[in-house]
Amino acid sequence: MSNSFGHLFRITTWGESHGGGVGVVVDGCPPQLKLTEADIQPDLDRRRPGQSKIVTPRKESDTVHILSGTFEGKTLGTPISMWVKNEDQRSEAYNEMATKFRPSHADYTYHAKYGIRAWPGGGRTSARETIGRVAAGAIAKKILSEQFGVEVLAYVKQVQKLVADVDPETVKAKQIESNILRCPDSTMAAKMIRLIEKTRTAGDSVGGIVEGVARGVPVGWGEPVFDRLEADLAKAMMSLPASKGFDIGSGFGGITMTGMEHNDAFRMKGGKVRTVTNRSGGIQGGISNGEAIYFRVAFKPVATVMHEQDTVDSSYKNTTLKGRGRHDPCVLPRAVPMVEAMTALVLVDHALRHKAQCG
Amino acid sequence: MSNSFGHLFRITTWGESHGGGVGVVVDGCPPQLKLTEADIQPDLDRRRPGQSKIVTPRKESDTVHILSGTFEGKTLGTPISMWVKNEDQRSEAYNEMATKFRPSHADYTYHAKYGIRAWPGGGRTSARETIGRVAAGAIAKKILSEQFGVEVLAYVKQVQKLVADVDPETVKAKQIESNILRCPDSTMAAKMIRLIEKTRTAGDSVGGIVEGVARGVPVGWGEPVFDRLEADLAKAMMSLPASKGFDIGSGFGGITMTGMEHNDAFRMKGGKVRTVTNRSGGIQGGISNGEAIYFRVAFKPVATVMHEQDTVDSSYKNTTLKGRGRHDPCVLPRAVPMVEAMTALVLVDHALRHKAQCG
Amino acid sequence: MSNSFGHLFRITTWGESHGGGVGVVVDGCPPQLKLTEADIQPDLDRRRPGQSKIVTPRKESDTVHILSGTFEGKTLGTPISMWVKNEDQRSEAYNEMATKFRPSHADYTYHAKYGIRAWPGGGRTSARETIGRVAAGAIAKKILSEQFGVEVLAYVKQVQKLVADVDPETVKAKQIESNILRCPDSTMAAKMIRLIEKTRTAGDSVGGIVEGVARGVPVGWGEPVFDRLEADLAKAMMSLPASKGFDIGSGFGGITMTGMEHNDAFRMKGGKVRTVTNRSGGIQGGISNGEAIYFRVAFKPVATVMHEQDTVDSSYKNTTLKGRGRHDPCVLPRAVPMVEAMTALVLVDHALRHKAQCG
Amino acid sequence: MSNSFGHLFRITTWGESHGGGVGVVVDGCPPQLKLTEADIQPDLDRRRPGQSKIVTPRKESDTVHILSGTFEGKTLGTPISMWVKNEDQRSEAYNEMATKFRPSHADYTYHAKYGIRAWPGGGRTSARETIGRVAAGAIAKKILSEQFGVEVLAYVKQVQKLVADVDPETVKAKQIESNILRCPDSTMAAKMIRLIEKTRTAGDSVGGIVEGVARGVPVGWGEPVFDRLEADLAKAMMSLPASKGFDIGSGFGGITMTGMEHNDAFRMKGGKVRTVTNRSGGIQGGISNGEAIYFRVAFKPVATVMHEQDTVDSSYKNTTLKGRGRHDPCVLPRAVPMVEAMTALVLVDHALRHKAQCG
Repeated sequence: MSNSFGHLFRITTWGESHGGGVGVVVDGCPPQLKLTEADIQPDLDRRRPGQSKIVTPRKESDTVHILSGTFEGKTLGTPISMWVKNEDQRSEAYNEMATKFRPSHADYTYHAKYGIRAWPGGGRTSARETIGRVAAGAIAKKILSEQFGVEVLAYVKQVQKLVADVDPETVKAKQIESNILRCPDSTMAAKMIRLIEKTRTAGDSVGGIVEGVARGVPVGWGEPVFDRLEADLAKAMMSLPASKGFDIGSGFGGITMTGMEHNDAFRMKGGKVRTVTNRSGGIQGGISNGEAIYFRVAFKPVATVMHEQDTVDSSYKNTTLKGRGRHDPCVLPRAVPMVEAMTALVLVDHALRHKAQCG
Repeated sequence: MSNSFGHLFRITTWGESHGGGVGVVVDGCPPQLKLTEADIQPDLDRRRPGQSKIVTPRKESDTVHILSGTFEGKTLGTPISMWVKNEDQRSEAYNEMATKFRPSHADYTYHAKYGIRAWPGGGRTSARETIGRVAAGAIAKKILSEQFGVEVLAYVKQVQKLVADVDPETVKAKQIESNILRCPDSTMAAKMIRLIEKTRTAGDSVGGIVEGVARGVPVGWGEPVFDRLEADLAKAMMSLPASKGFDIGSGFGGITMTGMEHNDAFRMKGGKVRTVTNRSGGIQGGISNGEAIYFRVAFKPVATVMHEQDTVDSSYKNTTLKGRGRHDPCVLPRAVPMVEAMTALVLVDHALRHKAQCG
Repeated sequence: MSNSFGHLFRITTWGESHGGGVGVVVDGCPPQLKLTEADIQPDLDRRRPGQSKIVTPRKESDTVHILSGTFEGKTLGTPISMWVKNEDQRSEAYNEMATKFRPSHADYTYHAKYGIRAWPGGGRTSARETIGRVAAGAIAKKILSEQFGVEVLAYVKQVQKLVADVDPETVKAKQIESNILRCPDSTMAAKMIRLIEKTRTAGDSVGGIVEGVARGVPVGWGEPVFDRLEADLAKAMMSLPASKGFDIGSGFGGITMTGMEHNDAFRMKGGKVRTVTNRSGGIQGGISNGEAIYFRVAFKPVATVMHEQDTVDSSYKNTTLKGRGRHDPCVLPRAVPMVEAMTALVLVDHALRHKAQCG
Repeated sequence: MSNSFGHLFRITTWGESHGGGVGVVVDGCPPQLKLTEADIQPDLDRRRPGQSKIVTPRKESDTVHILSGTFEGKTLGTPISMWVKNEDQRSEAYNEMATKFRPSHADYTYHAKYGIRAWPGGGRTSARETIGRVAAGAIAKKILSEQFGVEVLAYVKQVQKLVADVDPETVKAKQIESNILRCPDSTMAAKMIRLIEKTRTAGDSVGGIVEGVARGVPVGWGEPVFDRLEADLAKAMMSLPASKGFDIGSGFGGITMTGMEHNDAFRMKGGKVRTVTNRSGGIQGGISNGEAIYFRVAFKPVATVMHEQDTVDSSYKNTTLKGRGRHDPCVLPRAVPMVEAMTALVLVDHALRHKAQCG
């Protein structure tokens, strides 16, 4: 169960950072969707290491191959298997990792759970696992856009204490992609980038917030009780590496308001039921209300730092470990396509579920 | 799918606030567990309306009946069906609700999705639905305690801007239950209660934060990738009515630290691998690391307020609606057993999954 | 997982033959379907013990109560909880069953698996568990009939070596219900009933075959590979108590033909693609082809007989056991509504799945 | 959902007979199992076309590659991705298939369901899809053998009217593999092979029965109600291409007995509860009873024959179609490893489920 996500649009990811590669099987894609590798690769390029000076320098082209599920450029309704080969396997660079548990990584918990660990590259805990999610998410975004008129976006909202000024109702993809950080507030982005560069030079790392948005979601997606749209989004986001928090609409900030202040009044507008404010974040009672869905995901600072840290080795002795070689000072620009992918996967699944029960 | 939660310890809740009652079927409970209604009722009493002056005055005894799954006081390994009758069905009190959508409730989205709505009492969106969760959670807590030595607790951490001082490593159930708010910091609790009373008198409502804790979880529960322990906890919490945010360990606060500052160093202690700090919140790479698991859930102020608000009716005309009769100034004390229940459900499911794959 | 069936139209049954009753929760029913107990009770009456001289004389009215999921006579799209009280709990009649394992019953395997057993009435292995299936199946049949024009029928095809002559393409419900055996070949039915009566008098039991039919299923339901329509039907039928075999279309009989003889030629007829013969049984490659779906289910003779038999007791000593009191000489007439119910449950689930992916 | 099988040991197959290949992802395999391609390839070789004169002559080496989930020759507990390249893509040989629906194939139903069809090689309906199942089944058989002492076997029991004499309690793998038909009754096997050769020369095909056996299954696997062991086996077998029937133990033959004749008496033997006869087929009430599990699967004659047949084309006009080139006179010898694989997949899933709830 662990490696699948979704009910009607279900993905199964596989692969470690060593071995034959990483990939994903997408089950439940509607037939007759135009689809080639060219629809997938751009999002993988946005996720890729080495794309700019503020992310990890690991060099892999991350070229996707569609192995099944399409015929003459269209989906068949059968499982779409996508595969990305591993290229940059410098296991020797990591030898110390074979016996020492990196602090705030998954090395120790994996070792304890499975009694075996693919230590080169971090195995399944590597961010490389998200390649399959982003590839599948690209298909989900295409379905949402072409069949439902839904646009999914994400962007960097905060780095440490630097907060960008972005309107989730109007922000455009082009603005997000206008800088290497993927923060559409260009003035703040420049400051954030300087902070990240300084931190990288210091061999340290920063965390922050990615905000996700879905616009054009019709009224009625989502299910009451357990599979609320915000619950599925929360699970999706909290399953991303390094995420530590999720909130939606007014979120944690909303708790300082009273009910009177917080409620979103309804008003008719252009023949539609609309809310005057959008503190609900586009979801009420687990179901979309037609307003923009927007939420935030907190990412902790990347755990690998270029300093000596206290730790324990696999013979359960105290020791120290110093990160060396490549390090990722800021996961946020690469997290942006991950957040978009997971958002799209949740939404397309609920779109299909809505068709099934209420279509 | 919507009304089931869990994989190996799976619950299915049913029922509206009108009709024959509410209930839950628990599938996957291990056999030979001692179980009677007396194990369930106390948590239902903590969830019940009318339990104190700071919660909704609705009067129902919420008496649970076990209809199946036990024999001579022990579980059979077969589904446990539990049922709570509806008593307080004053549908006339709500007549306006039949045609007007309450702001920031689910009335409109349900109407739009299903084309039909059980308007008396709010139907499935009523907090009454959580009775089934709390009843099932009581069983999950019993299994965790008796078979795994795990203790699950929750308490009120914040009301509006008032923040309690509580140590999740040491807080005791008795302290939590020492006041009607379920906030173990008794000095702050008194202030919070005064604030809630004042707000109730003003016909308004407040939000806040419930913190959840699980102590004694062994190393190794949780699964990598999608079903990370924190992802399943996030989904569980964000499926509770009125929840708007979730974070774990350092959470949203952790983003202002650098990697160096944030990492939890490992040290051997008492023959065990321990972390010196616990910013990870007891989970690393989706898997428990043996430290205390703690997280926060943000609840918005209850939407029902005793003032006139702009809204729309079911013939899509602008109108106004004024709450009347009973209102719930603060959901937090009743949310405490809900958070405990959902935490226990997530943990016992992962305990069984761990046994299956790695046992 | 054990007690749920279906993906999008999912039922969860609960209850033993002792205790508070038996029931079912139906999740995923479309909203706005007219539904009251009167739609359910007739099929429960067809399933009920004591309905005629050729079935078990146990007396229970099996009156169904809808506890949730409807409002003013229509479904809400929320879970439908249905409950049937236990009435005839003569546990003293079965006292020997507490310590002796009945041959070819589930007593021993349950005891070994769970270490505890609700011995009065056979617990969960009792045919009483099928009440929930039949109640849910009545809803499924209603949806199929009203929303898709699909008719589901079943009837007794064979008792021991007596084989009825029935055309699955044209048989009518009225013909099936024209005798207490539910065999539409009235001449053969009379012979079968005499055989059953003779067997009952001898304290023995007979087995036979129930044939199931679904007419009007559109082309395209079913999914390739694992969730083929015939695979899901097979699982559904083989999950019924006492079933030992399933075949579809030409079935076991088809293996004596060659490919040339067996193939169903396609021909256009009335503007539709039709098959000249229907050895495929209405399904090709796991997907319905528009022809009548028909299949057979083999039921073994009921295990409870009024004679002394060798067995073992729960202290693992050889002993003997003699059935006494009520016995069921032939499960077939009561199996008919069970087969219909399970067929309808499979079909409505696939109807919804088809809408989701290809609708 | 369609392309996954199993709950705790879950496989997802993908791939068509055109395109990049076929494969499977195995999720839930226990860690630390020794595993290399050498454990998988032998079963793929038994499933492969071109292995003898009595099966389809299509030439592919079907070489398996493990892409993930192992490290230094042991499983990691992470998903195992296995891939077999397509080699023999002679799509030109099938050109007529692009527009004509082959009788008793899935061409028409797929076309109607999806509106698009990977006609070269039959797409997902090709027997090539079973490569993933057989590869996953090889892992399941290894787990069953090494961790539970369970042996899974299958063999050809019947070809048309020729029935082999085989004792499921004692038959050995070596006997099964002693001839190209995989029928351990060597005298009857010779007759069967002659019949198949004659049929092949006539451009026709035969059907028959494969019998499956599992020995050493402990008491207690399987779940009551829907996920009975026999129900899951039935689904597994009826999901295999060309299967038309399933029965277990006494099966369809048992219906001519009375209850007295059919019941399996219990007797203590060697300190264990045993049944004197085994008409139950090793399963009672859905749960294994410690006796050998044995069942039969009916396979229809392969639909592709070298004769002209009436059919319809994709513009819905009557036409004829004549098979040409390679044809498969008898699917049975290749179905043997498929039946073994599906049996092992069902059993290992239930073994893990049993550990979770009752372990």
